[in-house]
Parts: sequence; C-alpha cells; structure tokens
Amino acid sequence: MPPITIDLYSDNAAPAAPEIMAALARVNVGPAQPYGQDPESKALKTTFSDLFGTEVWVMPVSTGTAANSIALSALTPPYGTILCSDTAHIETSECGATELFSGGAKLTHVAAKSGRMSADALDEVIRRAGKGLQHRSQPAAVSLTIGTERGTVYPVSEIARIGEVARKHGLHFHMDGARVANALVALGTSPRSVTSDLGLDVLSFGSTKNGTLNAEAIVVFRKDIAEQLRYRLRRAGQVWSKMRYGAAQLNAYIEGGLWLRLAAQANCAAKRLSEGLRQVPGVRLIETVEINQLFAEMPEKVIAGLEADGIGLGRRDEGVRMVTAWCTTTEEVAHVVGRARLHGGVGLGPFS
Amino acid sequence: MPPITIDLYSDNAAPAAPEIMAALARVNVGPAQPYGQDPESKALKTTFSDLFGTEVWVMPVSTGTAANSIALSALTPPYGTILCSDTAHIETSECGATELFSGGAKLTHVAAKSGRMSADALDEVIRRAGKGLQHRSQPAAVSLTIGTERGTVYPVSEIARIGEVARKHGLHFHMDGARVANALVALGTSPRSVTSDLGLDVLSFGSTKNGTLNAEAIVVFRKDIAEQLRYRLRRAGQVWSKMRYGAAQLNAYIEGGLWLRLAAQANCAAKRLSEGLRQVPGVRLIETVEINQLFAEMPEKVIAGLEADGIGLGRRDEGVRMVTAWCTTTEEVAHVVGRARLHGGVGLGPFS
Amino acid sequence: MPPITIDLYSDNAAPAAPEIMAALARVNVGPAQPYGQDPESKALKTTFSDLFGTEVWVMPVSTGTAANSIALSALTPPYGTILCSDTAHIETSECGATELFSGGAKLTHVAAKSGRMSADALDEVIRRAGKGLQHRSQPAAVSLTIGTERGTVYPVSEIARIGEVARKHGLHFHMDGARVANALVALGTSPRSVTSDLGLDVLSFGSTKNGTLNAEAIVVFRKDIAEQLRYRLRRAGQVWSKMRYGAAQLNAYIEGGLWLRLAAQANCAAKRLSEGLRQVPGVRLIETVEINQLFAEMPEKVIAGLEADGIGLGRRDEGVRMVTAWCTTTEEVAHVVGRARLHGGVGLGPFS
Amino acid sequence: MPPITIDLYSDNAAPAAPEIMAALARVNVGPAQPYGQDPESKALKTTFSDLFGTEVWVMPVSTGTAANSIALSALTPPYGTILCSDTAHIETSECGATELFSGGAKLTHVAAKSGRMSADALDEVIRRAGKGLQHRSQPAAVSLTIGTERGTVYPVSEIARIGEVARKHGLHFHMDGARVANALVALGTSPRSVTSDLGLDVLSFGSTKNGTLNAEAIVVFRKDIAEQLRYRLRRAGQVWSKMRYGAAQLNAYIEGGLWLRLAAQANCAAKRLSEGLRQVPGVRLIETVEINQLFAEMPEKVIAGLEADGIGLGRRDEGVRMVTAWCTTTEEVAHVVGRARLHGGVGLGPFS
Repeated sequence: MPPITIDLYSDNAAPAAPEIMAALARVNVGPAQPYGQDPESKALKTTFSDLFGTEVWVMPVSTGTAANSIALSALTPPYGTILCSDTAHIETSECGATELFSGGAKLTHVAAKSGRMSADALDEVIRRAGKGLQHRSQPAAVSLTIGTERGTVYPVSEIARIGEVARKHGLHFHMDGARVANALVALGTSPRSVTSDLGLDVLSFGSTKNGTLNAEAIVVFRKDIAEQLRYRLRRAGQVWSKMRYGAAQLNAYIEGGLWLRLAAQANCAAKRLSEGLRQVPGVRLIETVEINQLFAEMPEKVIAGLEADGIGLGRRDEGVRMVTAWCTTTEEVAHVVGRARLHGGVGLGPFS
Repeated sequence: MPPITIDLYSDNAAPAAPEIMAALARVNVGPAQPYGQDPESKALKTTFSDLFGTEVWVMPVSTGTAANSIALSALTPPYGTILCSDTAHIETSECGATELFSGGAKLTHVAAKSGRMSADALDEVIRRAGKGLQHRSQPAAVSLTIGTERGTVYPVSEIARIGEVARKHGLHFHMDGARVANALVALGTSPRSVTSDLGLDVLSFGSTKNGTLNAEAIVVFRKDIAEQLRYRLRRAGQVWSKMRYGAAQLNAYIEGGLWLRLAAQANCAAKRLSEGLRQVPGVRLIETVEINQLFAEMPEKVIAGLEADGIGLGRRDEGVRMVTAWCTTTEEVAHVVGRARLHGGVGLGPFS
Repeated sequence: MPPITIDLYSDNAAPAAPEIMAALARVNVGPAQPYGQDPESKALKTTFSDLFGTEVWVMPVSTGTAANSIALSALTPPYGTILCSDTAHIETSECGATELFSGGAKLTHVAAKSGRMSADALDEVIRRAGKGLQHRSQPAAVSLTIGTERGTVYPVSEIARIGEVARKHGLHFHMDGARVANALVALGTSPRSVTSDLGLDVLSFGSTKNGTLNAEAIVVFRKDIAEQLRYRLRRAGQVWSKMRYGAAQLNAYIEGGLWLRLAAQANCAAKRLSEGLRQVPGVRLIETVEINQLFAEMPEKVIAGLEADGIGLGRRDEGVRMVTAWCTTTEEVAHVVGRARLHGGVGLGPFS
Repeated sequence: MPPITIDLYSDNAAPAAPEIMAALARVNVGPAQPYGQDPESKALKTTFSDLFGTEVWVMPVSTGTAANSIALSALTPPYGTILCSDTAHIETSECGATELFSGGAKLTHVAAKSGRMSADALDEVIRRAGKGLQHRSQPAAVSLTIGTERGTVYPVSEIARIGEVARKHGLHFHMDGARVANALVALGTSPRSVTSDLGLDVLSFGSTKNGTLNAEAIVVFRKDIAEQLRYRLRRAGQVWSKMRYGAAQLNAYIEGGLWLRLAAQANCAAKRLSEGLRQVPGVRLIETVEINQLFAEMPEKVIAGLEADGIGLGRRDEGVRMVTAWCTTTEEVAHVVGRARLHGGVGLGPFS
C-alpha cells in the first residue's frame, strides 16, 4: 500500500485546526494553578453557559469514550440499564466502558433505522423492560447520538419526543455529541434547541473529530449530577493536572463560531463526495449523507483502486465508510471522485 | 491575594517546554491513522525499548492517575490487595482510582519513613497479610514511588531488595514514576538499572510534571500484561483517537535526553531553594531535599509574607510544600529566598 | 383470589423433599468446623467427582443466580463478553448479576429457537464479535442452559458441537444447570456425557427447584478456576459459615439417585399435563414439553378459571407458563386438566 | 489431633437450635410463592417492626458478609469511603466484599481500643479525610460492630455519640450486628435503644452464630435505602427463591425472645470460662469478656494440651480466641477449665 495522502478512514485522522494550535501556544506562558483552577479552565463555564443559554458545568476529558461512559455512570445505578440504539458507539465500539464506570449496568438496545431509534420504539422497549421487577436491570437513562453512527441526524422534533419518553418513564437523558457540531450545522438549529430546551441532563460534547487535538467535554445541565462527576472524573484518571491545555482547546473551538465553521466544511465535503460517487457505476449510497459520514456499496475494483491511490477508507461488511473532516478540501473530494470514476470504468467527468 | 508570579505550589503549575510545543507543531501536518496506528505512536516502542535496554510496550495516557490505576488493574485480581507506602499517591490522592479499575481490590499500607517503605517492613506486612486464607484480600502487587511523595528517592539497592521481596512472595512489581526523571537524575543512574534490571513489571512513566502538556505513559515489561492492557485502556477511555499528539510529546521528551535536562534543572532549583531557606530563622526542613520537592516548617509570618508576594506554595498541617519545576530559574529561587529572609526578619543576605 | 393449593407458577414453589429434611436433622448434631472444614462439606468432592467421573471442585452457594454469575466471573476478564441465548436466565432474570461480579463484562445474545441457540449461530456471532479488536468487548465464554428457559433440552450432540465452537475460538464453556436433573432424565444420559466428556469448564448445578431448600453448587472441572473461585465466593458473601447445612442437602440430593427420581416425577407430571391440556379447545402448546415446563396459548376463560380454582400459574405475553415439581402428583395433574376442560367448555374426559 | 468434641473455635461451629429446626419442618408443607411472596417471608416485616418499634424493611441473606457488604453498598457512592475500626470484620475478614459490592469504595480505619473506636477518634479521622476535596475518596458512612470482634460491647452512650458524629458530617450509619443478640444481653437494653432511637440507617442482623442454620437479615430503617436494596440483593444472588426457609428461621429466632435466651446462654458460658481460666497460671485475659468471646494469653503447654483433649480453639499471634455458643453447657465449661488447670500444672480445683 502507498502512504495515505487523503484519509477518509475517519475524521480522527485529521490534524488540529490552526486556531487550536495557536490557543495552546497562547496559554503556554508562566504558571497556572493545576486541576482546573487556572483562568482558562474557569472560563469554560461562561463559554458553555452562554452557548447553551443556561448554567452548565463543563468537564474536559481526553476522549469521547471517557465522556460518554463517565457521564452515563452518573445517570444510572449499577443495577440499571441504559437504552440506546443498537448501532450506538457506546454499545459497539467502546470495549465495555459504560459497563466499567457504571459498576456493571447494562445497555438495552432499541432497533435503529439508519442509526436512529424512534421515540415509539424506545417507548415500547422501556415498557417491556420490567420497571419495578426485582429480576430485571432497571431502565435508568436514554442515550441518543445526535449525529448518528450512520451519518444521519435526528430531527429536532424526534429528539424532543425521545426526551419526553425518557421523562415520562423517569429516566435520565444523555446525548452522545461526538459529532454535535456537524449535526447542528445539518439541522440549522441552535445548541440549546436540542439540549437544554429539551430537558437534556448531560451532553458528551465532542471536538477532537472536528479540529482539536485531544479535548472533549462533559457538559452537565444539572448541578447534582455535576457534583458527583467531580469525583467520578478524578477517580477515572480524567482530571488533567495541566488543565489549561484542554480548556484552551475548547474555548478556542467555540470562540467566534469556529466549531460550526469547521463542521460546515466537513459536511459540505461529504455532500459533494456523495454527489460525485453516486454517479459511479456500481456505487450505491446506503444511507443519506446528512453530516460528514458516507456509507456506500462499492465495487471491489473501485475500493481497491482507491486504496492503491493512497486514499484511506473504511471497509465494512456492506461496503465502505468514508468520513470527511474540517480540512477536507474541494480538490481532494474532486480527486477521490475522479479516481473512483476511473476505477469504475467511466470518464473523469465534470468533477475532474 | 495578588496573582501568582512564581508558583511553587506544584510542578503541575509549570508550562510545557518549548521542545514539546515544537513537537506538537511538527506532527500537526496532514492525515494520520487514529488510535495509535500513526508513525509517531509506533515510534514509541523503539524510543522506550532503547531507553530501557529491553523490549517494552508503551501506552500513552492522559494522567498519572490513569497510568497508575489502569496499570495496577492488570497486576491484581479483584480480590487482591496492593502493597504500598501509606503516603503513596495511589492511596492518598487518586480518589479511589485503583479500587475502581481493579474492580474493588484493596490497598494495604506499609508504614513509610520519609516517603519510603523498607523492604523489611514490606516483607513483614506481606507475611501477615493472610496469603492463601480465603477471608483475606490476597497480596498481589507492590507499588513503589521512586521519587517519593515526600521529596526523597529510594536508593537503587533498596528498590532491588523490594523487588526481591515482591518476587519471593509471587507478587507483581509496579513503579509510580510521576517524577521518575527527577529520581534518576538524583540517583545518577540509568533507567534500566531501576526497572528492567530489577524485574519490574510495569512503570507509570510521568512526564507532565516535567515539561509536557498532558502525556504520561504506561511502560510494560511483559507481553502478557501489555496484551490485556490494550483492552483495559480502551474501556477506560484512555486511548486517544489522535494519538500522534500524545506520542509526539513523549518522543520529544526523551529525544536527546531532554527529560533528564529538565529534571536536573528542577532538582537543582530545589537544592538551592532548600539551602537558602534553611538559613531563615524558624524554617526547618522536614525531609531531605533529594528531588524537586521541599517540605519545611515555616513561621506563619514567612508563609503569609510569601503568599502576599505572589509566590504560590502548598500549606500542609506541618508547614509548607514547595515544588520547583523544569522552568524554575536561579533568579526566582533567589527572589523567594530573599523574600523569606525578609519576612523572617533577617537581611537579604548573599542570595539577593 | 383463593389461596393457591396447586402451584404451577414455578418449581420454586414446591417444598423440600423429606430426604433433604432428614439430612438436615442428621447433621444437626454437635460441633462442626465452619466454612467448609466439616466432614459433610468435605464429602462433596467425592460425591460429585464420582458423579462426573473426574476430579471436580464443588462450591455450595445459596442461589442459582449466585452460581451462574460468580462462576462466569472466573471465566471472563472484565473487558470480556459472554455468549448466551437471548432467552438465557443470566440475561433476562438476574438483574445484572453477571455484569456485577465480572466487573462490567457484557452478555452477547445468540438468537434462540425454542430456548436453544445453535452451534452454527453461535459460531457466526463469535466470528463477527471482533476478537482482537481493541474497541470491542472480547468474547470470553459461552453459557448454555441445558434444560432451557423454554422447557426444552439440548441434544447431547448439539452441546458437543457448541463446546467445540467455544474451544475453537478459545472461549470458556459454562453450563447453567438450574434444571440439570430434569434435562438428564429427559436425555436419558449420564452427567459426564454432557459435561466433563465435552470439555465443560464450570457447571451451575441446581437443586433448589428440584427438592432442596436453598442449596446450589458450582461444580468446577479445572483446578485453576477453582482456586480463584475460593476468593471470589468469599467476597461475594457466598461462603456459609455453617456449611454443613448446605453440603448435607447436596449430598443427600445425590445419594441413591434421589435427584434423578425427583426430576423424573416432575418431568412425568409435565408430560401428562401437556397431554391433557392440549386437548382443551383453544389450548395450544407453544413449545415441546421436554422437561418440567409447559408453555401454552390458553383462552382467558381457562386461565382465569384455573386461577379462581386456586391453581397457580404464570401469565406471559403469549399465554401461560406452568411448571411441575418433584411433588406434583398424578391426582393434581388430573385435577388441573379436568378443571381446564370444564373452563374450556368440554366434559371432564378420561383424566377425571 | 483427636476429633473435636467441644468446639470453642467459633460460635459458627455450633449446630442450630431445636426451635429453628422445628420451624423449618413447620413451613415445609405445600406450595409457597417464591422470592419472598409467601406468608412466612411477609411476616418478617411485622416481626422486626415490632422488635424495633418502628417500620423497618427486612431482607434475609445467607451470610453476614453478604449482609454487611450489600447493605454498605447502598450507603456509599463508589467514590466513597466507609469509616470503621481497624479490627472490623468488614476490613479484616471479608476478602474485600464491601469493595466489590460498592463498586470500589474504600474503608478508612479508625484506631480501635479493645475493638471499639471512640466517637472522638472517629470525628478526628473524618475531619482529616478531605471531604469535598476532589482527590480524596469521600467519607460516606460509619460502620460499627456492636458486639465487637474483640469480645467487647459499645456502651449505648458511645453508640449514640458515634451516631451524632456520623450525622454531623452527613454520613450514613451502619451497624454490624453479627453478635447483636449477645451485645443486647450484655448491655441489658432494648433493640431500638441502639438502632432506631439513634438514627441508624441499616443493621446487619446476625443469627447464624447464635442458633440458626444460615439466615442473616439486613434490617433497613429508611424506605429509600430499602427500595434500592431490592435490586442490589437480586443481582448479588442473595434473593432466595424458596425464601420461606430463611424467613422461618428468622421468625422463630425472634419469637418469644428465643434469640436473647440463646445469647444469654452463650454469654454466661463465656463469663464462667473466663473466670475459670484466669486462675490458671500463665493465662491472662487480653480483653474484658463482655459477650461470648474470650481472648487470652495462654502457655503453649496449655494450648497444646487442650487441643490434644479435643477442645477446639483459635490460635492467634498473641494467644488464643475461645468463643462459646448458645449450646455451650456448664459441664463443657467446667471440663475445659479443669483440663486447662491440669495442663497448667495446678489441681483440678472447684470447677471439676
């Protein structure tokens, strides 16, 4: 294999945005109190409270898995179960992190279509889960991935309905926002409209996939949950001593709407990519491309050809996954489409 | 209180070294495979295997607590107990992280003098711990902090004896190296002489206190332990997607002996500070200053005076803790000593 | 509702067999060393080793949930997953016990037909489970309920094939034997033919449902697993101080084949019950009755009529569950069938 | 060694009282709903609420370790610590059960004298434990063993003061009542005076050491704690399917004051034993004998002589432990004392 020059394997393959690097350099001056007592870390509360239009508590962590699993550990007793779609990252790709931090809680799956569970299906699963029966793990929380693992988004109205179902059954409500910026851009709505306005308890606020180096945040909408998370994070090894370097990334990410600009670029690249690829013979989009992920059936010769070209992608049982990032350029998209057309046996077409 | 201008509260208050920042900038170019599949992350194995003169497995993590507690979780069954000094960081300052990741193992204390447990005391505690008795948590591992929480170091010969005690009883051997560079400089010995040569199983290799932003490493000396740590780290939320940024810090930290130069500066500053302060009336060093930490009895007027001067320090029951860092300058030391002399009622003396 | 006089709600509703009560009286004399050091407890090893034709380690526990979950905790790392049918008791009815004792392992479901997973389906699920992938909980053990939760049994040949699949993938093999006696009677085979001969690691040996008061046993076929279970049981609060009373139940249960005689009575009653009920209009057996459980669609008037008669049964979404026990008499079966016929609108027929 | 004929190794060596055996026989008739839905199990609430003069929730479990550790798991968050004496059974003899069920909480020791911690020492330890500091496991509960592991009892006034200290710091209050009957007899006070009247949250109510076969109870004084314990017990494998056999033991144990009569016999035997042994040359009582345990220095020839006589006792570092039980007779005590005198080199004296 040649070295990868255009990497669509994951948005995690992208570098950090220059504004983020600049922020690191800016705070790398002189002493700063450790463990979040420095000014940059303290500023997070204002930054994010402004963003969500309500008082929030912000806790930087080093990975999305940490954000999800530690947040959920505060939303379920160890004898609880967390309802999520059967394609949720917490179920498929975190090696049992939620089970670890919760002390052995379960995940109960709701069958998803295109990465989304419906409020009705969720309601039905909860109703059959044995609330109050001693022999059953007790439904405790709902976790929803706003920009789903299948490249789709939940409409605001469906998030609202899911929140209502959670509330009706007395469950907590958590959102996995690994790609929350991409989802908000796709929905064209405000951060608060899908979180605080809908009674969300905790948001796993992702930024690493979208331009930071290694900073995610747990955003908490309730004080009592925030209080216990202080200790849960400390014992999880997730409280940076030099927290300024995490906080600086997050503050710079929000400042001036950088996060939304970066996400818009990624979404736009995915849209263009999907439009180009769908015209390649044998290529079929499996999911609608709503954020920055594309799932497609693709002839083996096209897949292998792209790989040989140094274009990174993710092979899946049913085809490929391609993920654009904040830094994916128009030229790169055109190049990938052009090569796919070539491998697929057609001319280079208008994109080239 | 005025803003802190010289911060001796902790070495965590220091910024990152310029070489580390440069390394971040250097790797922030183009795509890189996530989760440790990038060249920078892969280079860690060579960097550290060379350092320790044997094959090692290196796993970057975001905090020292994560390094200690996740490493230890691979060295004890959940029904085990870990022997450590009663002043060990894992016991006093990690909010039960080892208990969490181990699934409920215990810590058994060995009374320490000046932060060090003796091999004999350890042996005695293990012998009385009820090995093989069903009612007792089973001794499983020994954890030793090489540059202790009291600012002292273990002589190499005592580390060797402690390793022998561990081996004699069939226990694993772990080292908390939060300040391993400072300890090696103080001992004037090689990394391997206190680790691989002595049968160490796992080292928590610290770097954040000594010049990086947020990178620690679990260095594993046995393949079977490394294999299970892959999964333990993933489910602990400690596998960075963009691992290049952690790996780059660590590689640059080792390169050309930077880590030892930085530690030497910190140690040297602490030595000078202790020599200056011990001459202030009413100041008495509680521990010998062997690395970069200083514990001293100090009159309240001196403490309060330094604080009012914008000099950060840590108040303790028995006096103060002061910690120098890689960036503590000769001028800063002189300034602190001079102010202390003034507050203590003597002239400025030769340091000023 | 009238008091229940014939209870088919569960075999747990039955009293203890007179032989078991006599055994308790027999050992209730004079002192006996606690925690399993008494002669009755020590005799378990011989009793069960003879039964299984190989050396086994026997650990009495107080419930079947304890047997299953603590046994499984020795067969999986905390980052593991246990493969079982989607109707397995460990999944549906133990409130997350396996997740607790394993330190947060998962259960992965294999779709079952009539309570049985097939070896092929199991193999397929394991192959897709991501062995070796860091992001996935690692397949660690297979758990099979020999007398299934749907009243069926696994053929010996299928148990053998499932054992082979487990071995092929390097997984441990566990059997939930809550109704192992009933299954063995139904299969007409020896204990060893479905356990030691097939490479089973651990058997949860049930007896409470079949005539004891409160004694189950973990039967271990490998010494290394037995050794760690000593401690796992102690810290689970499952090592009786006066163990003679548990051991006496188990020894008496085996002695002279009592366990198989009791199970034969229960199976026989279920068979007769099913033959009678299937002739009631509107009643349809949902599963083949192979042990002592019966699942049937039943008209509401029949269900309600039986309940009004003081006959206990379990209502389910799809009809009813009826479970016979060691003490269910021919007269009781005839009475239930007769009443069902009456409520169903036919004459009493030949059973009355 | 000859067979043991008089066993003072532990009160766990004693058989069950005839009244308890009779109760088992009495309930072993006909069907009974499982999992505590039978009349005998339901009667526990009234039995114990009457005993404690307030509404309580009663949950039978199979061992004292289960009672302690599962009860405590409802009184601490996983990041909490439980304050107890350094000789507490939960610390020394339960193989980390509390750490398991709590999800990794710690135990913090208060130095005990004669098995008792003082309210003042407890207060001091709590005040130094770092409440509110993120780096420290958070003080969550106090656990006190009323009839201590050293054979002493707490005065009612000291229990009250300890309860006040717990309340002052916002901690839960738990009592290990492994020998609660012996303690109440020794104190000459009512059950409620040391529990409900003092704001106790949960009592581990022991009975196995004092005449039952295998039944202990968690007695809960607060409804919210009881509610979560329902699930915690189920997933701990501690909810008997045939609960009538546990409940019958507990009801019969209380009925007509049987428990206090049995304890009085045990206490009385210990008192006589201590009076006799203290007159043997070289024997010295290490602790005041207040309940049914005796700790004494004893010449090796006396210890070995008694063992050779078939008298079971517990060797300890500092001498021996002897524990009387409900069934220890006056004749047995006289025999032991007589043999000790003989081995100690004096005449048989007035006891023989």
